Amino acid sequence: MQKVAILGLGIMGNGMAHNLLKAGFALTVYNRSREKAAALEAAGAQVADTPKAAAESAELIVAMVADDAASRSVWLGDDGALAGVRSDTLLIECSTLSTGWVRELAELAGRRGCAFLDAPVTGSKPVAESGELGFLVGGDAAALERARPVLEAMGQRINHLGPVGSGAIMKLINNLMGGVHVAVLAEGMLLAEQAGLDMQQVVTLLSNGAPGSPMVKGKAPRIAARDYDTHFALRWMHKDLSYALDEASRHNVPLPTVAAAREIYRLALGQGFGDQDFAAVTEALRPKPE
Amino acid sequence: MQKVAILGLGIMGNGMAHNLLKAGFALTVYNRSREKAAALEAAGAQVADTPKAAAESAELIVAMVADDAASRSVWLGDDGALAGVRSDTLLIECSTLSTGWVRELAELAGRRGCAFLDAPVTGSKPVAESGELGFLVGGDAAALERARPVLEAMGQRINHLGPVGSGAIMKLINNLMGGVHVAVLAEGMLLAEQAGLDMQQVVTLLSNGAPGSPMVKGKAPRIAARDYDTHFALRWMHKDLSYALDEASRHNVPLPTVAAAREIYRLALGQGFGDQDFAAVTEALRPKPE
Amino acid sequence: MQKVAILGLGIMGNGMAHNLLKAGFALTVYNRSREKAAALEAAGAQVADTPKAAAESAELIVAMVADDAASRSVWLGDDGALAGVRSDTLLIECSTLSTGWVRELAELAGRRGCAFLDAPVTGSKPVAESGELGFLVGGDAAALERARPVLEAMGQRINHLGPVGSGAIMKLINNLMGGVHVAVLAEGMLLAEQAGLDMQQVVTLLSNGAPGSPMVKGKAPRIAARDYDTHFALRWMHKDLSYALDEASRHNVPLPTVAAAREIYRLALGQGFGDQDFAAVTEALRPKPE
Amino acid sequence: MQKVAILGLGIMGNGMAHNLLKAGFALTVYNRSREKAAALEAAGAQVADTPKAAAESAELIVAMVADDAASRSVWLGDDGALAGVRSDTLLIECSTLSTGWVRELAELAGRRGCAFLDAPVTGSKPVAESGELGFLVGGDAAALERARPVLEAMGQRINHLGPVGSGAIMKLINNLMGGVHVAVLAEGMLLAEQAGLDMQQVVTLLSNGAPGSPMVKGKAPRIAARDYDTHFALRWMHKDLSYALDEASRHNVPLPTVAAAREIYRLALGQGFGDQDFAAVTEALRPKPE
Repeated sequence: MQKVAILGLGIMGNGMAHNLLKAGFALTVYNRSREKAAALEAAGAQVADTPKAAAESAELIVAMVADDAASRSVWLGDDGALAGVRSDTLLIECSTLSTGWVRELAELAGRRGCAFLDAPVTGSKPVAESGELGFLVGGDAAALERARPVLEAMGQRINHLGPVGSGAIMKLINNLMGGVHVAVLAEGMLLAEQAGLDMQQVVTLLSNGAPGSPMVKGKAPRIAARDYDTHFALRWMHKDLSYALDEASRHNVPLPTVAAAREIYRLALGQGFGDQDFAAVTEALRPKPE
Repeated sequence: MQKVAILGLGIMGNGMAHNLLKAGFALTVYNRSREKAAALEAAGAQVADTPKAAAESAELIVAMVADDAASRSVWLGDDGALAGVRSDTLLIECSTLSTGWVRELAELAGRRGCAFLDAPVTGSKPVAESGELGFLVGGDAAALERARPVLEAMGQRINHLGPVGSGAIMKLINNLMGGVHVAVLAEGMLLAEQAGLDMQQVVTLLSNGAPGSPMVKGKAPRIAARDYDTHFALRWMHKDLSYALDEASRHNVPLPTVAAAREIYRLALGQGFGDQDFAAVTEALRPKPE
Repeated sequence: MQKVAILGLGIMGNGMAHNLLKAGFALTVYNRSREKAAALEAAGAQVADTPKAAAESAELIVAMVADDAASRSVWLGDDGALAGVRSDTLLIECSTLSTGWVRELAELAGRRGCAFLDAPVTGSKPVAESGELGFLVGGDAAALERARPVLEAMGQRINHLGPVGSGAIMKLINNLMGGVHVAVLAEGMLLAEQAGLDMQQVVTLLSNGAPGSPMVKGKAPRIAARDYDTHFALRWMHKDLSYALDEASRHNVPLPTVAAAREIYRLALGQGFGDQDFAAVTEALRPKPE
Repeated sequence: MQKVAILGLGIMGNGMAHNLLKAGFALTVYNRSREKAAALEAAGAQVADTPKAAAESAELIVAMVADDAASRSVWLGDDGALAGVRSDTLLIECSTLSTGWVRELAELAGRRGCAFLDAPVTGSKPVAESGELGFLVGGDAAALERARPVLEAMGQRINHLGPVGSGAIMKLINNLMGGVHVAVLAEGMLLAEQAGLDMQQVVTLLSNGAPGSPMVKGKAPRIAARDYDTHFALRWMHKDLSYALDEASRHNVPLPTVAAAREIYRLALGQGFGDQDFAAVTEALRPKPE
């Protein structure tokens, strides 16, 4: 079996790591705060002190972190993973990142002779735990074939979108749609609430009707219950919409509804909702009783 | 069987009228341009020259027109339906209208002793033809029971939302979500297109993913094919978003993504896309090749 | 001297009425709550109990009220001013209204043989008091000549824009620009504040720089001081932006920044800022200290 | 007199360089395309082949380029200016840049022992030529005193905003207001045009009224004449609004009108208006005759 390193043990990375162990891979893990690695260590994973140390023992490295800054910090610098790779190491970035940084990282990988895939995931915590993630992959087909056994241990639907960066773009498109679906859901449900409709009925009608996306079906009952337990933190949705808007600038595509949504997520950020589920954007828009 | 009049024989009204005939109701129809009534006349409907004349022969009147102005013109004035009603006539407005006008009309109906329901429909042309429409009903329960046989001849899911105006509000909420879902779909698909992704793959991923609402599933392949054959005209989506924003003003609910979407539908209106399907909003945003 | 009636004694109407008295016109005033007329009565004005009564004694009627609904209530109905006019009465609507209602009112006036002008004003409370208002006039030139002595008693710059409705449109354009200027000023000043700049310096630089409109110069120091003493109430700015967006729908003109601004004024309305100055929109956007 | 290098001879840099020569400074100039330096060479300037070569001869270096990417390219790399500085060289960045890059550059300067000022300018081409620019300066006071003679040769109003980055932030605030003022001016003037108002009268009323900022006064007549001769290119306004939105993300400040405006500038970019004056955003919104 391949030796795999995983960098980043957040909600998603943790589930992915457990599935790699279950599938029998020799696994080394790294996380900024080491305590998150305890359960994995007990289950048989090696724990590295630096990304570089994790990389040195690996044939294939998977990163799963929050944003460009976190990705830069695990790959770059004296202790970064790039300092520990060999020319035959395969690098897989599963985080949701800007395409600018993804392409820069791919180039840095190339200079060290390493193949690189951007492979952001679709699915949230329970899906990561059950090994049913989807992967949106950019990079060359040969590299994807080398990665396939590892990806299949963590997920099910592996979509090859095209050259490096293609996976990152598709992920941003997926998330910009999710971000706007939830923003307009918040708007519509607040209108229903203020107009005095029965919210359970509204949840049912929207879920079963034309706007009933899985996103809407998942969030509508939680908005009705004001349950913002974090499946995906509002600050990361704000970040993803920001990356999508940057990408749009590169291609001269206007994104007016995304832009409007991003500002209200930022409004919610400024009101302290950053660590709650992004459906908490509802609270930033709700009229206050007089 | 009840004697029914139907006012308005557009795409939707026409399908509804045929289903009423099929179910055995004695039907009188009125349409501004009489030629649209020919097939119904051949199938056994009476054709009235004015809404008033249609109303005089009816126990129950269904209106299905485009907007507030059209609704005012069939109900009000010397030749309007209100001039022909009796105190036991039941009035059912199935058009998508502003709640302001719906409440005004309900009051005018009440002055003549008539019961009134707002009962806008969900579903588009094929659903109207197959008799599978949904109804979002506002008004009192007794009136709804009287209307039920007629509504069941035209549709399947009859949802009672609350007092007069509740159906109209729920319909606006449904449509504001549809309008924003298609606007952000246009944005996301244009970003995919300009970034060079394979559009069939994008359609599949969005349709099967978290944003895969029935609306997204229906429109994504058509946007990819630039097929804007009219299921629901862009000018009516612009109108519905406008009514929703007016309703939001009444309740102090901000609708930032709806507001952004409404302006780009208006941009598309100004470019001549008003009579095409509202998915044609895509064309107003697409970067032009240099 | 002409006999003049004035309907509406709010902040603006009150100042206008005093100037008409000063100029020697025989003045009858009407206000919904009669106590606001006391000072004018002491100064020599007649006080009427209904708009109709005020109209009966007048050759020229000036209305200055808050919105379409208030305008309808003073002109229409059994006690409304239209019920008291003669065919040679000249009607002048100085309120900021939707063009739809202005044109409807002009038509109703025409049916009674009355000439009609829409003549909304520019300037706020102190300008109304000093008799330096500007008038944006729609209607025919002969009617404007008849109105001129009265308008000149209340203001200075009388601009004839074109046929009925032209004054109303120009006023909406003026106010939509003011509404957006203050919205973006709020945004920019909050960014300056959160970034730690010296706010007095920011006020000076913005006031003296390219964005230094009279509107910006007037509001910037008040936003810095969080002084929202009402010069123009936020709810009326929300209303004017709404009328402007309706007007834009008639002409297929997209107004994306106006639409974005209107939603944040509505956000502020929902937080209870409706009766404060519209610069209070700043408070609805300010990040909260954690 | 100090030896000065100027990097970037665009519209602004060229005027600044001529004023430095006039004031008697020993001047070395660098521009990516050397032909733009010909007139300055004839007037007595040295022309360097690389930013590094320009830097080696200078006590004080002024950069005036288009964006972050251009700024990176003149400062960084083997031929970049930072490779040629001494520890007593004073670096002044006059370009409008993101604060992220400004702070990164300041740190790189600091590592070489160099003092650094961000000093973006207000004013356009004619103002640059007449030596009347304003400077918005961030950095320490001692460095500003060293820079003052050079800045005074190019401009008049030197405002010290605070530590490094403060000038950059203030410039972005200034430009976000200008960008929105012109966007809403375009919206308002199109509404006036489509409603049939006399555009000369509209220009006069807006220029003399509450929204009459210098920006509005300058652009309104040009929009009426459809004269988009470039004073400030639309692509740079799009860039500045993008930097402002990034800055807002750092401080959790929502900028809804800026966000709406940025998307319509991008719409105009996609239609080929990037090199025209940013007032050309009007053309992207104008309804097309049917």
